[in-house]
Amino acid sequence: MSGSVYGNIFKVSTWGESHGRGLGVVIDGCPAGISLSSEDIQKDMDRRKPGSGKYATKRNEADKVEILSGVFEGKTTGTPISLAIFNEDQRSRDYSAICDIFRPGHADFGFESKYGFRDYRGGGRSSGRETSARVAAGAVAKKLLSEIDVEINAFTVAVNDIVIDEENFDFQERLNNQFYMPDKKAAEKAAVLLDEAMANKDSVGGIIQCEVTGLKPGIGEPVFDKLDACLAKAVMSIGAVKGIEFGAGFGAAKMYGSDNNDNFYMSDGKVKKYTNNSGGVLGGMSDGDKLVFRAAFKPTPSIAQSQITVNNKGEDVTVEISGRHDPIIVPRAVVVVEAMTAVTIADLVLMDMCARIENVKKLYGKV
Amino acid sequence: MSGSVYGNIFKVSTWGESHGRGLGVVIDGCPAGISLSSEDIQKDMDRRKPGSGKYATKRNEADKVEILSGVFEGKTTGTPISLAIFNEDQRSRDYSAICDIFRPGHADFGFESKYGFRDYRGGGRSSGRETSARVAAGAVAKKLLSEIDVEINAFTVAVNDIVIDEENFDFQERLNNQFYMPDKKAAEKAAVLLDEAMANKDSVGGIIQCEVTGLKPGIGEPVFDKLDACLAKAVMSIGAVKGIEFGAGFGAAKMYGSDNNDNFYMSDGKVKKYTNNSGGVLGGMSDGDKLVFRAAFKPTPSIAQSQITVNNKGEDVTVEISGRHDPIIVPRAVVVVEAMTAVTIADLVLMDMCARIENVKKLYGKV
Amino acid sequence: MSGSVYGNIFKVSTWGESHGRGLGVVIDGCPAGISLSSEDIQKDMDRRKPGSGKYATKRNEADKVEILSGVFEGKTTGTPISLAIFNEDQRSRDYSAICDIFRPGHADFGFESKYGFRDYRGGGRSSGRETSARVAAGAVAKKLLSEIDVEINAFTVAVNDIVIDEENFDFQERLNNQFYMPDKKAAEKAAVLLDEAMANKDSVGGIIQCEVTGLKPGIGEPVFDKLDACLAKAVMSIGAVKGIEFGAGFGAAKMYGSDNNDNFYMSDGKVKKYTNNSGGVLGGMSDGDKLVFRAAFKPTPSIAQSQITVNNKGEDVTVEISGRHDPIIVPRAVVVVEAMTAVTIADLVLMDMCARIENVKKLYGKV
Amino acid sequence: MSGSVYGNIFKVSTWGESHGRGLGVVIDGCPAGISLSSEDIQKDMDRRKPGSGKYATKRNEADKVEILSGVFEGKTTGTPISLAIFNEDQRSRDYSAICDIFRPGHADFGFESKYGFRDYRGGGRSSGRETSARVAAGAVAKKLLSEIDVEINAFTVAVNDIVIDEENFDFQERLNNQFYMPDKKAAEKAAVLLDEAMANKDSVGGIIQCEVTGLKPGIGEPVFDKLDACLAKAVMSIGAVKGIEFGAGFGAAKMYGSDNNDNFYMSDGKVKKYTNNSGGVLGGMSDGDKLVFRAAFKPTPSIAQSQITVNNKGEDVTVEISGRHDPIIVPRAVVVVEAMTAVTIADLVLMDMCARIENVKKLYGKV
Repeated sequence: MSGSVYGNIFKVSTWGESHGRGLGVVIDGCPAGISLSSEDIQKDMDRRKPGSGKYATKRNEADKVEILSGVFEGKTTGTPISLAIFNEDQRSRDYSAICDIFRPGHADFGFESKYGFRDYRGGGRSSGRETSARVAAGAVAKKLLSEIDVEINAFTVAVNDIVIDEENFDFQERLNNQFYMPDKKAAEKAAVLLDEAMANKDSVGGIIQCEVTGLKPGIGEPVFDKLDACLAKAVMSIGAVKGIEFGAGFGAAKMYGSDNNDNFYMSDGKVKKYTNNSGGVLGGMSDGDKLVFRAAFKPTPSIAQSQITVNNKGEDVTVEISGRHDPIIVPRAVVVVEAMTAVTIADLVLMDMCARIENVKKLYGKV
Repeated sequence: MSGSVYGNIFKVSTWGESHGRGLGVVIDGCPAGISLSSEDIQKDMDRRKPGSGKYATKRNEADKVEILSGVFEGKTTGTPISLAIFNEDQRSRDYSAICDIFRPGHADFGFESKYGFRDYRGGGRSSGRETSARVAAGAVAKKLLSEIDVEINAFTVAVNDIVIDEENFDFQERLNNQFYMPDKKAAEKAAVLLDEAMANKDSVGGIIQCEVTGLKPGIGEPVFDKLDACLAKAVMSIGAVKGIEFGAGFGAAKMYGSDNNDNFYMSDGKVKKYTNNSGGVLGGMSDGDKLVFRAAFKPTPSIAQSQITVNNKGEDVTVEISGRHDPIIVPRAVVVVEAMTAVTIADLVLMDMCARIENVKKLYGKV
Repeated sequence: MSGSVYGNIFKVSTWGESHGRGLGVVIDGCPAGISLSSEDIQKDMDRRKPGSGKYATKRNEADKVEILSGVFEGKTTGTPISLAIFNEDQRSRDYSAICDIFRPGHADFGFESKYGFRDYRGGGRSSGRETSARVAAGAVAKKLLSEIDVEINAFTVAVNDIVIDEENFDFQERLNNQFYMPDKKAAEKAAVLLDEAMANKDSVGGIIQCEVTGLKPGIGEPVFDKLDACLAKAVMSIGAVKGIEFGAGFGAAKMYGSDNNDNFYMSDGKVKKYTNNSGGVLGGMSDGDKLVFRAAFKPTPSIAQSQITVNNKGEDVTVEISGRHDPIIVPRAVVVVEAMTAVTIADLVLMDMCARIENVKKLYGKV
Repeated sequence: MSGSVYGNIFKVSTWGESHGRGLGVVIDGCPAGISLSSEDIQKDMDRRKPGSGKYATKRNEADKVEILSGVFEGKTTGTPISLAIFNEDQRSRDYSAICDIFRPGHADFGFESKYGFRDYRGGGRSSGRETSARVAAGAVAKKLLSEIDVEINAFTVAVNDIVIDEENFDFQERLNNQFYMPDKKAAEKAAVLLDEAMANKDSVGGIIQCEVTGLKPGIGEPVFDKLDACLAKAVMSIGAVKGIEFGAGFGAAKMYGSDNNDNFYMSDGKVKKYTNNSGGVLGGMSDGDKLVFRAAFKPTPSIAQSQITVNNKGEDVTVEISGRHDPIIVPRAVVVVEAMTAVTIADLVLMDMCARIENVKKLYGKV
């Protein structure tokens, strides 16, 4: 319970540090009978992989995923699915410059306070590389959800103060630029801003929006395990996320009830809403509408500028963080947000199966 | 696992509907030896209680809490603490006007979709009254935390577009006005705005800020059970919350790394930060600074205006929600935010005890 | 996590001490739509109730159960079901004789070692009365299981060295005698033995057998949450149980593989076994046969004889335990064994629903 | 939640099938600062390894364990410890003889009933090989426990009807014979019996006893997570175990209270018991005495004799199971019993740290 196990029925257990033998995840509770190949997973791994763009670190991480168990003749067997990403390059580097320093904006001080010491190589367990195991688990969850036509898509809506324009919105465009922005012009402006930041040895933050379609109404458990509450935890657990909001979000705080309430109406025998201020979730359960949330990412804490800080001997020092670091985390985090969303919703979908005795009886042929 | 159990070590299990026999909570895993009386709990119950102000519903809910187990001779025994708030007034009312209608902005549609039917009396399990059990559990968690000098305070920072002014900030003032705002002038403006909204049979939202002091660095578990991730779930699980942010929050997305990073320095042998953009949490662990987060509440969905909606027969209808409802949820939610924060942090504090073998050995007298 | 929460999906959380306000249980995760009345539960409560026979304590415990939440218009709603058994008689008694003494065979020393002090009134949380909440939860689980025709029956197979004779086996007879033995002659011998033990101010133990019919093959989760493993925990968690065995049990250790293996054969298109040494469980999953296990109960530790022991001041003392105590726990424990079995199997049945993607798709109308 | 995750704080998640890429375990929640090397673990792996004796299968399983994460500079870091045992020999074999047959005494029928199909290679997830991951996790738990001087030892007390004789008891002897029996003569008789069974293409069962010393009183959580209840689940979850008993066990059912109660007395300022019928556990908590339990193992179900059974087409067939199989599981299971005991007790020891507020305050320097 050091916090690396997640989920109730669809349960993932991740492991690995930045510079050890590798990273991985064990998924316990994935239903049997889902087609699954390493290609299904690799597709998402490649979206997270560094080095693919100008604004991403050039480190050589192949991020090749291997299925170690739980799949037989191309299908999940119902037993634990073990996925691993082994590090190919384990050269020992020189960490003497930062091994005893608490980097500003990083988890170093927390780790040392909590455990008494830390694996300082490349950030250890708090490295961004930790998210590769999440992406692998997310790819499996997406396969599960695709069986019931649930689809998840995230994209970048803001890079620093450059926000996408609804008028220029082009969903396919997100795949054409390095920022995963569905707005070509915004992406171009972001590129200029990033170039400037990099010249200043600085970094920038941004906002990711995630949308889920195909969710039937009623997914999410009332009270503590609400759909939005679970997703909030899932997404806030990604390093660098500082906030999350659903539907109208913080804007809802400034609305009147008569505007914020989404009125229901019937359409083709289905319950629909005229607006979606709810973001697709009411009372912690999906309302049949598109699920929409946004997560705010802080700028990458690793910057090359000289920074004031302290070391673990209690001395004031300065530090320059060398090496290549992403000047913005957001584009690579898009698939991580999707992954945590997929894992969370897969779990809640399974949980929801047990909500009615009618469901039990259906599966037992009693109704 | 219908979602009403929360926590790992300090585990709370709530029950109850708006109009049944009552509501309550069972706390399993509270350490033995903590002084606890019903007065300790009632104090917080009274802060949530309706009817105490102009902008709160006038319903007669005594919210008197009783300790049914787990306390002996004034101290917790280590066994489950059962707390109940029995309903005094169980008159059956006439719900025929709304029993088959899905109220806009409410959980009605979700409940009926999930379970096939619902307890429509007063909102059933999704009533705001459900939070009374959370407040009771939170009061116990606060007692635990007070033993190690951790203190939690929440207050209102915005009512609709009226935001408190840092210059007028007066912490004690929050207790003097009906909005729990630490700014007298803002509270006065909010009163005007509320009067107008009520005249329009409308409701308003707002923002609550919560601050925690006294947390030692290292609380929170890396990866999934991060301090901020757990709090995000805890607070988002309160009905009507649409967003949460820590420290610089959504603003961090617009900052450069060089500004957002909080530089460390030594002061009296302690590690301090010049700024607190982190909101007291780095890498999912407390950084020794004040923990700060904000939660956005939507306006009360129950409004007296006539609204378009549908019923469970699939017909388009209109509804006027009668009865007295809070035109703003925020002031009564302040203590609920504190409660969920307390329960979450108590759990993480206990979990953190097991982080080092040195701790185990200390308690066994081996070091 | 002081150990009073049990189950994964069908999750029960019990509370209460022998001499406090009462005892109870909150069930989270019971599917919606099951008919449930307090009579359904009271029926089993009455089977556990003391005072109904010569070999049961005469204490006046009405054990009247009340449903406080989770049921609406006669059906479970899917929200937590809170059940309480309030103590009618809360007169304070004189516990000065035992309040600082560690009674032999009791949990007193453990409680005081663990928590530093204990609620010594009537055994506190370790009183046999604690099982009343289990029986209440079990009655709800039985209702769930009855919807898929799973039936649970326990009975006494041994009182001290008096064992039922297969030749005299009469299932209905168990309801006619005070020992719940399905063998009239054995029950008569047991009565003689009990009379003698009571005359000697002594107590006796015995063995309960539990049988479950109607379980489809495949219930139970491989590896740690095996059907038999979960039941072993469930039943061993009942105070006074010292052992459990399934099918051939300890006898299997003396068998050869060729005898112990149950050969399969086809009968009317169904897979059957010629023998049932497995006790209905193979590889941790039900095998479609009758589930059979036996649990050994030690003699009641509370006896009126003078006993050597120590007190919490570290002094050697003697103690005579006054008051009426069951000279044998077994007959009243029969329904407790059924209850723990029901709660465990209900949980595993719900868990099993998520074993195949085919099940998910069936409920979503995709196959 | 397919049942391959175990524990609350010290949480293990195992994966792997008999004939896939390998097997492994992720341990989340192991405290930081424990010395740990792969040698520490390999020692126990070698005790489980097949091929080391006449009565063990000759299959070539190297069972070499690798630490993939969670250890830095020779110490646990507090982050997940990933351990893997990769299969060296993955030649595909011919399983056509058994791939559609339900072997008697095996999990085949259960797996196919539950999941619709199964990985039939070498028993898949229900292979005895699955226990290698348990042994690896157990070795880590033992290291943790050794820091507080808790020691675990298991040995064989019976092979079929050959039971060790208390008079010949020689603890060291268990390491000298192939049965792990602490009685040389009994081991010699067992060898004769085994030779005969093997000649008959048959298999035998036996009983393992496990003892734990150094446990302070109070370990184990009242009600559901009792020390003995948790151990019962842990040990019953090992394939082939059909029963478990603590202390006097099933024998207690035949004792009178006056004999079964262990009288307490003071000795050198410590609370001691004259006898140990309790097996070191009272009311679900350790009582300071030696913890003692026994587990019954059925004979190996894989035998070379021709057996009657059915296949997954619903046809009556006969099967001869070829290949080398242990004619007795017991000797190799000794270290598995120790492992499950270690993992369970490590978890309960960590949980017990949170039992008192005094403990919290001690670690926070408040008392």
